[in-house]
Amino acid sequence: MSLGTPSLLDRLSLNQQTIRQWSLPELADGCARAGVRGVGLWRAPVRQYGVPAATRLIRDAGLRVTSLCRGGFFTALDPGERAAALDDNRAALDEAAALGTDTLVLVSGGLPPGSRDLAGARERIADALGELAPYAAERGVRLALEPLHPMYAADRCVVSTLAQALDLAERFPADRVGVVVDTYHLWWDDTAGTQIGRAGGSGGAGSTEGASGTDGASGTDGAAASRIAAFQLADWVTPLPEGVLLGRGQLGDGSVDLRWFRERVETAGYRGPVEVEIFNPALWARDGAEVLAEVVQRFRTHVG
Amino acid sequence: MSLGTPSLLDRLSLNQQTIRQWSLPELADGCARAGVRGVGLWRAPVRQYGVPAATRLIRDAGLRVTSLCRGGFFTALDPGERAAALDDNRAALDEAAALGTDTLVLVSGGLPPGSRDLAGARERIADALGELAPYAAERGVRLALEPLHPMYAADRCVVSTLAQALDLAERFPADRVGVVVDTYHLWWDDTAGTQIGRAGGSGGAGSTEGASGTDGASGTDGAAASRIAAFQLADWVTPLPEGVLLGRGQLGDGSVDLRWFRERVETAGYRGPVEVEIFNPALWARDGAEVLAEVVQRFRTHVG
Repeated sequence: MSLGTPSLLDRLSLNQQTIRQWSLPELADGCARAGVRGVGLWRAPVRQYGVPAATRLIRDAGLRVTSLCRGGFFTALDPGERAAALDDNRAALDEAAALGTDTLVLVSGGLPPGSRDLAGARERIADALGELAPYAAERGVRLALEPLHPMYAADRCVVSTLAQALDLAERFPADRVGVVVDTYHLWWDDTAGTQIGRAGGSGGAGSTEGASGTDGASGTDGAAASRIAAFQLADWVTPLPEGVLLGRGQLGDGSVDLRWFRERVETAGYRGPVEVEIFNPALWARDGAEVLAEVVQRFRTHVG
Repeated sequence: MSLGTPSLLDRLSLNQQTIRQWSLPELADGCARAGVRGVGLWRAPVRQYGVPAATRLIRDAGLRVTSLCRGGFFTALDPGERAAALDDNRAALDEAAALGTDTLVLVSGGLPPGSRDLAGARERIADALGELAPYAAERGVRLALEPLHPMYAADRCVVSTLAQALDLAERFPADRVGVVVDTYHLWWDDTAGTQIGRAGGSGGAGSTEGASGTDGASGTDGAAASRIAAFQLADWVTPLPEGVLLGRGQLGDGSVDLRWFRERVETAGYRGPVEVEIFNPALWARDGAEVLAEVVQRFRTHVG
């Protein structure tokens, strides 16, 4: 089941936020020079550069766009805000299709101001997925629901575990709605391994360790039924900074058993891109090429 | 099942960290004046004042010690550190018994430096509970395992969910090892309600929503089999401060449906103290009596 180092390295993708000091041309050039063949892009810099121009730039550098970050923010109660969010997500799907990626990462949204209704917010996410799934399917893009660490539940994403993400995703066909496995968000959870198996379609449905539940994947090809739309890496380091957004660790610097996660997603049948996504001002203050070389070295040591 | 406001207020306990600007005599006097009849104490200020003197002070003020915080930190790999931690926990159990409380709150410990082995750390917690449980039982004190929010998993407590805490506690008799239900740590978890039911001995064993598993409480009195050793309240507010330790919100200021939790623990059979434990420098900068009056008012509005 383990892949040799060369083929795993071929699957390495650099999320552009990891080296946000780079412009898009610097990113394309830097990745090509380092032999990194995939990039995860963010909407704001892509739109600033222009979607067609960015598409040509990445393609001409011989790179593949592994995901676009991000859509989502589906939890507004106000109908106008909600409609605007859906429109914005349709635009994101158009951009993803133009860039040639099949994955739009979704950060689902937190609680609206004054609300304490987590269950209601999660239902509004399901409603939004239902509205967007046909539009996404027409464009060949999968909605990739990302569970975020529970410390973001109030203000960013009420989907806090892989089990919750799968509970939502499984209401839709697997080729339309998938999930993101991000080590930074999931590392603490003792059910993560079982849920990765569930996401891969290898049994173990329901939010239970070792439970025998509905087997959503029985009789289908494992890969076809897989919900794993993206696999992202960052390490967990402390102390967390104020606001807890920009404290992700370089691979190997923290508490996460990255190799364990890589082996689990592979056992679950995942053979897609392995995207490194680290938000850390210390990395942004350094030379981009040096950071990327370090990412590649750490990836070999701690993931491969 | 709902209790009238007067009897619920009788169960209100003030954890001393909520008004840490108060000395122990100020705490005893302030609570007695405000009609708050329980206090949760911390070891450091109690030891500084002297355990026998603190015991007399609290008793003379007509108050009850609802819990002592805290023991734990069981995850060290080094045998010397481990032995020291066990000794320290025995001292904490002695202090709890002297103070007349039946509850020692345990913060179990994070990952040792350089370790990424969450499962191993959790096993060392189980081992420590096994070592301490007889000593605790002799003193009439229950070990109260507190699941802490997953953002503390690396550096403070690898027990992150009520399900994990119960998985550990259930290896021991219910009157020796219980769990703490703290809204700040558990509010985001969609399995919290089911797990509170499990903790109360009302069925639903195993870490599963609605599962039928081993019924640890069958044929026994609900209260006798209950694992709920303490119920603590704080609200979740953002943004989180650097280090994420001192950002708890006053009741009603944040995202937590406190009444829902109160109703759930009551449905699970819990009738013990309801302890308010808020770590927040903004509260510590104010007049203690004013803060306590606000706590009581918020408690009536958002919990009762």
